[in-house]
Amino acid sequence: MRYHRIPDETIRRLPVYLRGLLDLSEQGKESISSSDLADFVSVNPWQIRKDFSYFGEFGVRGVGYRIQNLIKHINRILKLDSLHKTALVGMGNLGLAVLAYPGFRVYGFDIVAAFDNDRKKIGKKINSVIVEPVSKIRNLKKRNVSMGIIAVPGEAAQQTADLLVKAGVKGILKFSPCYITVPKRVKVISIDIAMDLARLPYYMSAD
Amino acid sequence: MRYHRIPDETIRRLPVYLRGLLDLSEQGKESISSSDLADFVSVNPWQIRKDFSYFGEFGVRGVGYRIQNLIKHINRILKLDSLHKTALVGMGNLGLAVLAYPGFRVYGFDIVAAFDNDRKKIGKKINSVIVEPVSKIRNLKKRNVSMGIIAVPGEAAQQTADLLVKAGVKGILKFSPCYITVPKRVKVISIDIAMDLARLPYYMSAD
Repeated sequence: MRYHRIPDETIRRLPVYLRGLLDLSEQGKESISSSDLADFVSVNPWQIRKDFSYFGEFGVRGVGYRIQNLIKHINRILKLDSLHKTALVGMGNLGLAVLAYPGFRVYGFDIVAAFDNDRKKIGKKINSVIVEPVSKIRNLKKRNVSMGIIAVPGEAAQQTADLLVKAGVKGILKFSPCYITVPKRVKVISIDIAMDLARLPYYMSAD
Repeated sequence: MRYHRIPDETIRRLPVYLRGLLDLSEQGKESISSSDLADFVSVNPWQIRKDFSYFGEFGVRGVGYRIQNLIKHINRILKLDSLHKTALVGMGNLGLAVLAYPGFRVYGFDIVAAFDNDRKKIGKKINSVIVEPVSKIRNLKKRNVSMGIIAVPGEAAQQTADLLVKAGVKGILKFSPCYITVPKRVKVISIDIAMDLARLPYYMSAD
């Protein structure tokens, strides 16, 4: 099944819903009303109903949304229903935290390779992944790795991106706070771990 | 000046715009059209115009938005125009990465205290902050700390949140992937560093 014309804004919210639904599922919930889900993920109820309507999920009157069903739907739309082999570059504190973080696996990202230029780190086995030198990134093509995570210092980010692109990676998640350019066919998503904190003072002063 | 009735969804997007505007400013740009900004931050142009209209920023025909002006506006709305003293709990890889990350200061968050229970870490000076034992969290009230960042393992998150709340913290940024409960007056924002990656496969398969 192929879903059409889903706006970028909806795609941006789907992981937020998915995260909330996974939490609710872990709490043992089986269904939820759109207004309770809205409350849980801090999105307007009408927005949730509109977003879900793009893939024909309207909820059941008196029951609400079936959580497992929704998780399956969203996973299918976001193409998270298959495993994505992922490479991680940069084994500093952030890279180590990323490698240890169980959340990536939840979404189907399997970190199968880790790279760093630090001799003290190369060859070490961390969370069942052996750290390789950056020069080995070029071998990723053979290993069917399609995603890359960049956790190197800002000044090395562009060079790292170039190596990943050459190795056939199609999507990059970048933690480094700097601007990089890649060919149009490669999608880059940047994370600023401080950005979410920027919403807090607004709500703190609203009391 | 006080801004009224700004929807949560707009508040959620403002840091995204702010992040983009800061990047553009760093690149030396002075103004930008709503469609170019939309492209840069991956939000619909009409959405940006609507969001900015809540605080009376409409752009100038033929010029677009003045970047510095917008940054100032957004900072004021989000109450980021004053410094927020912040405490960090958990000095594992993620905590160390957070402490080293320059991005928090960009938004006015000054990490002035760091806590851990590991004796090997207590007393160490990291990025000009001395690591203290968790038992000292209760002293934060005297030190005028209003925000807390939780980077402890999931099973310690609730206990850490309780200590921070008792110490008078009004806002919590939580990295630990688990559910915590706090009094209504305290605002919690959770970060799932894997969540943003969940958008990539959708775009990768769209080519």
